[in-house]
Amino acid sequence: MPETNIDSRRNFLRKGVAMAGGAALTGAALGNSAKAEPLPIPEWNKKLGRNVVDVPYGVPSKFEKHVVRRNVEWLTPDRTASISFTPVQDLHGIITPNGLHFERFHGGCPDIDPETHRLVVHGPGIKKPMIFTVDDLKRFPSVTKTFFVECPANGGMEWKGVQMDSLQFTHGMLSNSMWTGVLLKDVLEYCGVDRENFNWLLPEGGDASGMTRSVPLSRDSKDQYGIKVYGGKNQVGEKTNIDGDWIYENAMIAWAQNGEAIRPEQGYPLRFMIPGSEGNINVKWLRRIKVDNHPWNHREENSKYTELMTNLDDAKRAELMNGKARQFTIFQESNSVITFPCPDKGLKEHGFYEMRGIAWSGMGKIKKVEVSLDGGRTWTKAQLQEPVFANSVTRFVFPIEWKGEEMLISSRSTDDTGYTQPSLIELKAARGVDSIYHKNSQQVWKVAANGEVSNVQIVKKVKTDEA
Amino acid sequence: MPETNIDSRRNFLRKGVAMAGGAALTGAALGNSAKAEPLPIPEWNKKLGRNVVDVPYGVPSKFEKHVVRRNVEWLTPDRTASISFTPVQDLHGIITPNGLHFERFHGGCPDIDPETHRLVVHGPGIKKPMIFTVDDLKRFPSVTKTFFVECPANGGMEWKGVQMDSLQFTHGMLSNSMWTGVLLKDVLEYCGVDRENFNWLLPEGGDASGMTRSVPLSRDSKDQYGIKVYGGKNQVGEKTNIDGDWIYENAMIAWAQNGEAIRPEQGYPLRFMIPGSEGNINVKWLRRIKVDNHPWNHREENSKYTELMTNLDDAKRAELMNGKARQFTIFQESNSVITFPCPDKGLKEHGFYEMRGIAWSGMGKIKKVEVSLDGGRTWTKAQLQEPVFANSVTRFVFPIEWKGEEMLISSRSTDDTGYTQPSLIELKAARGVDSIYHKNSQQVWKVAANGEVSNVQIVKKVKTDEA
Repeated sequence: MPETNIDSRRNFLRKGVAMAGGAALTGAALGNSAKAEPLPIPEWNKKLGRNVVDVPYGVPSKFEKHVVRRNVEWLTPDRTASISFTPVQDLHGIITPNGLHFERFHGGCPDIDPETHRLVVHGPGIKKPMIFTVDDLKRFPSVTKTFFVECPANGGMEWKGVQMDSLQFTHGMLSNSMWTGVLLKDVLEYCGVDRENFNWLLPEGGDASGMTRSVPLSRDSKDQYGIKVYGGKNQVGEKTNIDGDWIYENAMIAWAQNGEAIRPEQGYPLRFMIPGSEGNINVKWLRRIKVDNHPWNHREENSKYTELMTNLDDAKRAELMNGKARQFTIFQESNSVITFPCPDKGLKEHGFYEMRGIAWSGMGKIKKVEVSLDGGRTWTKAQLQEPVFANSVTRFVFPIEWKGEEMLISSRSTDDTGYTQPSLIELKAARGVDSIYHKNSQQVWKVAANGEVSNVQIVKKVKTDEA
Repeated sequence: MPETNIDSRRNFLRKGVAMAGGAALTGAALGNSAKAEPLPIPEWNKKLGRNVVDVPYGVPSKFEKHVVRRNVEWLTPDRTASISFTPVQDLHGIITPNGLHFERFHGGCPDIDPETHRLVVHGPGIKKPMIFTVDDLKRFPSVTKTFFVECPANGGMEWKGVQMDSLQFTHGMLSNSMWTGVLLKDVLEYCGVDRENFNWLLPEGGDASGMTRSVPLSRDSKDQYGIKVYGGKNQVGEKTNIDGDWIYENAMIAWAQNGEAIRPEQGYPLRFMIPGSEGNINVKWLRRIKVDNHPWNHREENSKYTELMTNLDDAKRAELMNGKARQFTIFQESNSVITFPCPDKGLKEHGFYEMRGIAWSGMGKIKKVEVSLDGGRTWTKAQLQEPVFANSVTRFVFPIEWKGEEMLISSRSTDDTGYTQPSLIELKAARGVDSIYHKNSQQVWKVAANGEVSNVQIVKKVKTDEA
């Protein structure tokens, strides 16, 4: 196995200087001797470049044309109600540029005029029903929070064994932004919300799908929603992770993303947002909020966005759960993935590499990430990079010296609730293989001797140091 | 004067609900009664929108076409060596979207191929001179830091009394990003830097101007650079604010900005960066680093990017300083500005408003921002919004209820060194009016009774509460 966890920058560099003629950190590995290669004056030093404001709104270099959103043709019947994936393999730090934020449309992306757009707040639980313009809402006290939006179907293709050979497609339904807007509770309280008696909220989108989702506004909501049946199949099976009190305090109506107006594909001009929640409940193009005393059990929380519990390994458990589903599983669980190396970006020469990755949890802050190079047998702590925000993507790094060994590399994150990301075997044992949503199991990459990386699944339990 | 410092969200909302029929927070001010105005189903709910990946790299809504970089035709002889300004008045939170980052070119913006681009590290102070590819550098341990880049000429037009009636032009040479790259010292140590005997560094840009600047690498550098004369005029007059030790520990070579590759106009593929420093020293399109035992006193640190000290009010001081200049004033001083309201965005109806602004310092973290509504006579603390990073733009807010009063509004920031942003009068008394650079004085906006906002300068010392 390669040497792992060269745990500090200083250590690496001492080694680097000391081993300048050695195997791992030679000039050949990280640059060439300036004496050996004379440096010609390049053409761009010799001619004037473009003017200022030739591009009033800038775009990436023409040499970065490969860094774009992509979709998977066979995944959905058409591209109007479909998804595009963020090129996670090409990102740095924790922010997703707005132009690369993944897309999920249920009726296409509308082009809404903010001057004529309105938000209605009404329902039995609202004493003073109001119609707001976008400018009205921007006059409220503002907040900015950094958090991810992740489709709960992210990685869903892996449940049944599909192994997409690209990080963009295994984890690209995830993006991370600084969102600015008004706290939901400020708007509700301005409209005189009666939270004692009415603790469910329905946000509605202004797109062709008229997206709606039921949102609990207090802890009591959990006991209230009852069990509705959709097509004789869908029932609440296991405990959900809803926390309506937290939602009431933290949900927001956002109008800006990474400093500028929200992009059309993210809900321009207004988006309903719950930090840490599954993407779909962050209703885009928000035009209506209703407050009542029950969930609505609409299409997108019954036929979709529930987790079917069939095909469990354990026969007794399977009998108990078959045909049932987890419902209102609003928050995304602790998750992580190694972004370098990955199938899109392999290793080349032997020597020093900084393995890099991202971790995130809808339940709080990432507290710890561990990395394994041997298929989950042994784990070593990775270094988290600042800043570490709750409900946000967090960057981790893990330096290695690679001498051409085959490796099975993976990461597992633990959030500040103490919950640790499971292996795929553990996840399947708990939830079966018929689910699409909330797949947060460890991603294993195989690094071949030639440095190429592929997506593999470990199907038999490995003996760990801990066991 | 209007009621100020309604100091908490909760307070505002209690008032809001309590005063629903009152003067400040009526339905008319922040939305209309839903009963009074029926809401028709808008067209965008009735037709399908665009497909996913119709726009593989996304762009803002067509209704945001006014949010772009702009330039000032008369400011520079041409647009190849010129500047464009960030629309600060339209930004939210603390991040500047990459497409809106201000531009400053000295020979136009080159379009560099990262495959053929090289970085040379050499000079008498380098034991192992090296040539790096961009990929070589990306293998080093990475760091991500959030900090601003500000042209030291930001606001420079105001020194002599020009009053640009747009926040974009008074403060738009400022942008804030999360930068990712390698620490400079990691690269220097890999190349065997002899810092004991060689503590000045020259970064060189790969553009037509071949931009160079002298960078001190230790505290001792200050005593070493001597006094060079340019055209018989330029000498070091006052103490500089260089701190070479800090630079050595914190400078970086960046390859990414807000999650993606650095944009061409910001230095693609590599940029030399010192967090908190004046923009010009953050050499773009970095192709060469030389380490030696003296500064170079090149054109861009003598004929430009020094502060001429002529025309001081105090005759004795003027005699002392006339014809001399501050040189190597590398770090940007504590600064702030109110971004709403501003000349670009006035007030409309009377009632509740959240005044918003930004503060920044190249010396550390923003510790406090105060707001005055009466031309600097009285000051009240504003609320800082998280996150507060060192050398980064920090957002502040200050709620008011406005009943149509005329106001002279301004902000002043204090950083964690204890230094407070001066008034324009104080700045001129210390530095005269012939400078272009390092103008960090308080910006005063006049709010008229009709809500329109203009740029004003207070030319006589006001009596303050503190005096």
